[in-house]
Amino acid sequence: MTTRHRLLATVGLALATCLAAQSAQAQQAPKPEQLIKWRQSAYQVLAWNTGRVKANVEGTFNKEEVIKASNLIAALANSGLGALYAPGTETGKGWHDTTVKPELFTDKKAGEVAAAFNKEANELAKVAQAGDVAIIKAQLGKLQSTCKACHDDFRKKD
Amino acid sequence: MTTRHRLLATVGLALATCLAAQSAQAQQAPKPEQLIKWRQSAYQVLAWNTGRVKANVEGTFNKEEVIKASNLIAALANSGLGALYAPGTETGKGWHDTTVKPELFTDKKAGEVAAAFNKEANELAKVAQAGDVAIIKAQLGKLQSTCKACHDDFRKKD
Repeated sequence: MTTRHRLLATVGLALATCLAAQSAQAQQAPKPEQLIKWRQSAYQVLAWNTGRVKANVEGTFNKEEVIKASNLIAALANSGLGALYAPGTETGKGWHDTTVKPELFTDKKAGEVAAAFNKEANELAKVAQAGDVAIIKAQLGKLQSTCKACHDDFRKKD
Repeated sequence: MTTRHRLLATVGLALATCLAAQSAQAQQAPKPEQLIKWRQSAYQVLAWNTGRVKANVEGTFNKEEVIKASNLIAALANSGLGALYAPGTETGKGWHDTTVKPELFTDKKAGEVAAAFNKEANELAKVAQAGDVAIIKAQLGKLQSTCKACHDDFRKKD
C-alpha cells in the first residue's frame, strides 16, 4: 500500500465514522414535532388501557386482560416518557398542537407527579397479578388521581 | 315495607343494574374511530421505542434505556392489539385515514405475522436484559422483519 493509498483509506475511514456518528446522533435527536406526536400517542395508549381496566372492574372481569393492560401501563410509565419533553417541545404540533403548559418544563413539582404516576402504575401491575377486583379498582383510582394532578397543573384547558 | 315500596325498590334496582350494564358495555365498545386512533398511537409508540433501541445499538449504548424500550415493545406486543381491529374498523379515520388493507381482517396469515411479532418482541426484551449489543442488534433486526412482513401484506402503500 502506497502512502497515498493509506491516506485515502484513513480519510475514508474518518468520513465513514463521522457519517455513522451523525446517523446515530440524528436517531437520538428526533425533531420536536416527532417527540410531541410520540407523547400524544403514548397518552392515547394509556387512555386505551386505563379504560380497559375500568371496563373490567366495573363490568365483566377478565383477569388476563387486566394484567395485559396493567403491564402496558406500567411499561409506559417506566419507559422514560420524560425524554419526550426535551427542550424545544414546549410548543409545537404533533397530531395536534401540544396542550402542555410551560410550567411543566420549569416546576420541580412535575417530577413529583411523574414519580407518583410511576409508583401507582407499578402498584397496579402488581395488584393485577393477584386479581382482586376491589383492590384493582381502588388502585386504578389512585393511578387516575395522579393523571388528574398532572392535568390540573400542567395541561392547558380545552 | 309495603308491596308498593317493594315494587318500587325492585324496579329501581333493575334500572340501576341496567344502567350499570349499559355503562360497562359502552366502555367495552369504543367507537371504531377511537379504536383506529388507539392503534395508530400504539404503532407510534412502537416506532419511538424500536428507534431508541436502534440508536443505542448503532450509537452510544445505554443498557437501561434499551431495557425500558424493549419492555415497552414487549408489553405492547402482549397487550392484545388485535382488539383494536374489531369489526367496523376496516375503514375509517383515527388520527388519519386507516392504512389497513381489508385482507388483514380475513387472511389467516395475519394471525401468523402477529404471533411472529409477539415472539420476536418477547425475545428482544429477554436479550435486552443480558445487554450484549450484537445480540440485541440482531434481535432488533428479527423484530423489524416481522413489522415489514405485516406492512408488506396488510398496509396500503402511501
